[in-house]
Amino acid sequence: MPAAGPLRFVPLGGLEEIGCNMMFFEYGNEIVAIDAGLGFPGEETPGIDYVIPNTSYLESKRANVRALIITHGHYDHIGAIPHIIEKIGNPPIYATALTKAIIEKRQADFRNSPRLKIITVKNGDKIKLSNHFSAEFFDIAHTIPDSTAVLLRTPVGNVVNLGDSKIERDSQGHPLGLGEYERIGRENILLFTAESTNADKPGHSESEYEVEKNLKELFAQAQGRIIVAMFASVLTRIGEAIKIAEKLGRRVALSGYSMKANVEIAKQLGYIKAHEGTLIPLEEIHKYPDSKLLILSTGAQGESNASLMKILNGEHRFVQIKAGDTVILSASVIPGNERSVQTVKDNLARQGAIIFSSDIVDIHASGHAPKEDQKLGMQLLKPKFLAPIHGYYYKRFVNAQNGIEAGISKENIFLLDNGEVAELTASSFRITGETVPASYVMVDGLGVGDVEEVVLRDRRNLAAEGMVVIITVIDRRTGRIAKNPDIISRGFIYLRAHQDLLEEIRKRLRNLMSQLPANQEVDSDYLKTLIRDQIGQYLFTRTRRRPMILPVVIEV
Amino acid sequence: MPAAGPLRFVPLGGLEEIGCNMMFFEYGNEIVAIDAGLGFPGEETPGIDYVIPNTSYLESKRANVRALIITHGHYDHIGAIPHIIEKIGNPPIYATALTKAIIEKRQADFRNSPRLKIITVKNGDKIKLSNHFSAEFFDIAHTIPDSTAVLLRTPVGNVVNLGDSKIERDSQGHPLGLGEYERIGRENILLFTAESTNADKPGHSESEYEVEKNLKELFAQAQGRIIVAMFASVLTRIGEAIKIAEKLGRRVALSGYSMKANVEIAKQLGYIKAHEGTLIPLEEIHKYPDSKLLILSTGAQGESNASLMKILNGEHRFVQIKAGDTVILSASVIPGNERSVQTVKDNLARQGAIIFSSDIVDIHASGHAPKEDQKLGMQLLKPKFLAPIHGYYYKRFVNAQNGIEAGISKENIFLLDNGEVAELTASSFRITGETVPASYVMVDGLGVGDVEEVVLRDRRNLAAEGMVVIITVIDRRTGRIAKNPDIISRGFIYLRAHQDLLEEIRKRLRNLMSQLPANQEVDSDYLKTLIRDQIGQYLFTRTRRRPMILPVVIEV
Repeated sequence: MPAAGPLRFVPLGGLEEIGCNMMFFEYGNEIVAIDAGLGFPGEETPGIDYVIPNTSYLESKRANVRALIITHGHYDHIGAIPHIIEKIGNPPIYATALTKAIIEKRQADFRNSPRLKIITVKNGDKIKLSNHFSAEFFDIAHTIPDSTAVLLRTPVGNVVNLGDSKIERDSQGHPLGLGEYERIGRENILLFTAESTNADKPGHSESEYEVEKNLKELFAQAQGRIIVAMFASVLTRIGEAIKIAEKLGRRVALSGYSMKANVEIAKQLGYIKAHEGTLIPLEEIHKYPDSKLLILSTGAQGESNASLMKILNGEHRFVQIKAGDTVILSASVIPGNERSVQTVKDNLARQGAIIFSSDIVDIHASGHAPKEDQKLGMQLLKPKFLAPIHGYYYKRFVNAQNGIEAGISKENIFLLDNGEVAELTASSFRITGETVPASYVMVDGLGVGDVEEVVLRDRRNLAAEGMVVIITVIDRRTGRIAKNPDIISRGFIYLRAHQDLLEEIRKRLRNLMSQLPANQEVDSDYLKTLIRDQIGQYLFTRTRRRPMILPVVIEV
Repeated sequence: MPAAGPLRFVPLGGLEEIGCNMMFFEYGNEIVAIDAGLGFPGEETPGIDYVIPNTSYLESKRANVRALIITHGHYDHIGAIPHIIEKIGNPPIYATALTKAIIEKRQADFRNSPRLKIITVKNGDKIKLSNHFSAEFFDIAHTIPDSTAVLLRTPVGNVVNLGDSKIERDSQGHPLGLGEYERIGRENILLFTAESTNADKPGHSESEYEVEKNLKELFAQAQGRIIVAMFASVLTRIGEAIKIAEKLGRRVALSGYSMKANVEIAKQLGYIKAHEGTLIPLEEIHKYPDSKLLILSTGAQGESNASLMKILNGEHRFVQIKAGDTVILSASVIPGNERSVQTVKDNLARQGAIIFSSDIVDIHASGHAPKEDQKLGMQLLKPKFLAPIHGYYYKRFVNAQNGIEAGISKENIFLLDNGEVAELTASSFRITGETVPASYVMVDGLGVGDVEEVVLRDRRNLAAEGMVVIITVIDRRTGRIAKNPDIISRGFIYLRAHQDLLEEIRKRLRNLMSQLPANQEVDSDYLKTLIRDQIGQYLFTRTRRRPMILPVVIEV
């Protein structure tokens, strides 16, 4: 087959933020995308549900999109699917069995979304995706079962994407699974797109084995009930907790919608094994002694709508904290959630729980390889080119350093931004200078992409200083105020308690009006500008605050 | 002198939050307060500048307030002074020389504030505060020079408050300054109010000696300019950085208002020593080679108005980052600031800086003693009663555990909340059940305490969902709409781009009006409720968002 020019590689999301992971490869008229995740917003985007990658480019070439490969079932890798899949032409999705089930579960929440075409793959499978692309799936370690990595064979060479990965270790601390890295490393890797989440953390991956050992000890010590709060997505550890509970003769109840849903899926597919009778409905916990109970709950980050928060606030139908409960927060705190997690601990302590968190004892292991394991992976995969992805610039920058330390030559390492187009040949990597749209798409309520920057800017301003609506009714003939102006404020100061300020605003409005030429029509835009400027200035002088001033002029 | 009942002890702030530290002791008609700090707001209080303790009780007994003791010059211990001092009767303030200078510097920023009566004390001083109270000041280690601890002698017994403190160690790791703890411990301590900031951190205090050693190494390695970002309040380390720079022949320039102000004060009082010519104005750095420059800057937390942010954004008059700059972030990240600090690192990396932060190398030591040093202090002070203060409930709860491990009997340890009144005699400690007002007082703009909870709730709602103002003009005689309704929205969706939604709202308003009885006066409150409910419900159905609906009905 004749060459159709170089391979184009474009990261669409995940490079300037946590989440939103998505990238694509394009060769001639064929495009293969990998992952389609969502991201959670920060302080800069108040009120937004989540953000997803911008797929405009893929939409414009929807006929060319031949495959969407999904590496694992976490929302930062699958969450955008319901929003984008139809727009990019509903291409076949390649995913492992558990990942497929989680994608389909989520899709069911979206009415009117199309039926997905998911092709189940398993590690070891070699699959032809299109004329130019084929994929080989192989095993890596992460915190959810059935994670996969992909070796993408392209006309210019082989590309490796590990999805999210860590290097697991056995009880002796020996690394596991390096055979796969070595085997793939013999395939002459042209490009490795390396995730950078923990690239700046020193050392090796924490071991899930250690975590399980510590959980076992804490479980064995506990006298009363045990409540473990964790992400519903760390299914590997959830399965292990259930196993430990069985050994100690504890029943397991699940609390939280996503916890129940995920465990149900994983059980059906055999990824979580539990004896008959181990799992009991939450409403039956009162039938068992406290020392025979384990409750697995969502909410380790203090998420306001999670089950643990309902328990803490006394709003849960079946569970309240009681003195002597052992509560284990098996998660590391995601930056930005520190204050919420502190509140969770405060409330737990006030209610008499015995608390263990991962900053005190190792009861959480990240699913992302730190520095030394990044280097180990790079040394075994031996890529010609390295493109750190999946992480803020600094993390990717440090991962580039890791690459250099792992023996990849500096000029073969490239830090792209979301939307930047790179072109690869068998011997070259070039950032072209071309970009495709990559600005966030915001999902808020039912709307996708209809929350514009102007709306967010208003939200930020309203949150900081509030607003004042000033309604002036004018007699069209005389150009004079026809009624006492209505003034409404929210988020500024409590005006009812500041009648003097209200009176002063009204007085100034009358003064302002009296300076306008009489007996002619009022230029209401001009009047609005006057009100905005003069009343805004007055309020600032009086209060040092700058509420948004919204003048309304009504002529009657 | 006859006993005037028990000693009353009331913490006013700092127990449920970071900052706002303040407490008082009351005996008969005499009150002594310790510290008067401010706190920074969280997501729950958008737009607020800061919060201060509620001093209503002290205001109502202002004639009895005999002394305000200030332990050290950090804003979480002095920041409320300008706002409260007059209200509590402008009592004498007892503070060390550096603390005094910092308080006076801040006071000068507040016009119309009263002249303070500050009595300079030094460690070792024993001072009679009133008939019933006297104070002995003694030395503890913190991150600002001239910190002091206080032994408060009261008619029922001795109380110890260490302010903020850590236990410093020498180059061999031997603890320093324990002699003072031992000496005070021989004074038969009735109550120890122990700060709990790091009570849940395992181990001993990190050593400032180690920090200085590491800074020395980083300074010695650096080829180009060195920029150290740190709090302007860690004056001890600032002084040390200047010393190291001198040894390496580097000039030092200060960037940031508070950095300049604090160093100036500390230099005048001799707490920072610098040779003639070491400190140079920032505008003259171009006269020296990069290898001979150290810049000390504020902004290690990514604070938006700090000097480092101006440098990074290209808005600084004299400093821009250039490739080869070594930038040292000598601070630990305060919970909530993670995202801002990540942005700082991303921008620094993009601009070519060599970055060191305290999660990678020990270049910051906290000023607050962790677990093992808490216990050591308690063992040496040997208090009868322990009241953990200064920290969220969980931290204070853990500090209570530290107390038990240090040999204090469990029933002699008390966890109070802000505003709870405790009564002490020579042999008893009792939480009375009485409370004094202790809700936050919010400072925003020029107003103190005029931002009510209702305003904050509005700000949070506005930030999340925005608002829609609907202005309906009604003909008084006919009860019918006289004009096309005005609709203004902010922070909801961009209505100009959704004319269909606007039209539909107007249509529904007309429908709604047509259902009202004709030819009679309209009950405008009833109409407003109808509009709020029906239009609100419609917008929710259409958008899954609940903007604040503000109906205005104008009759003409």
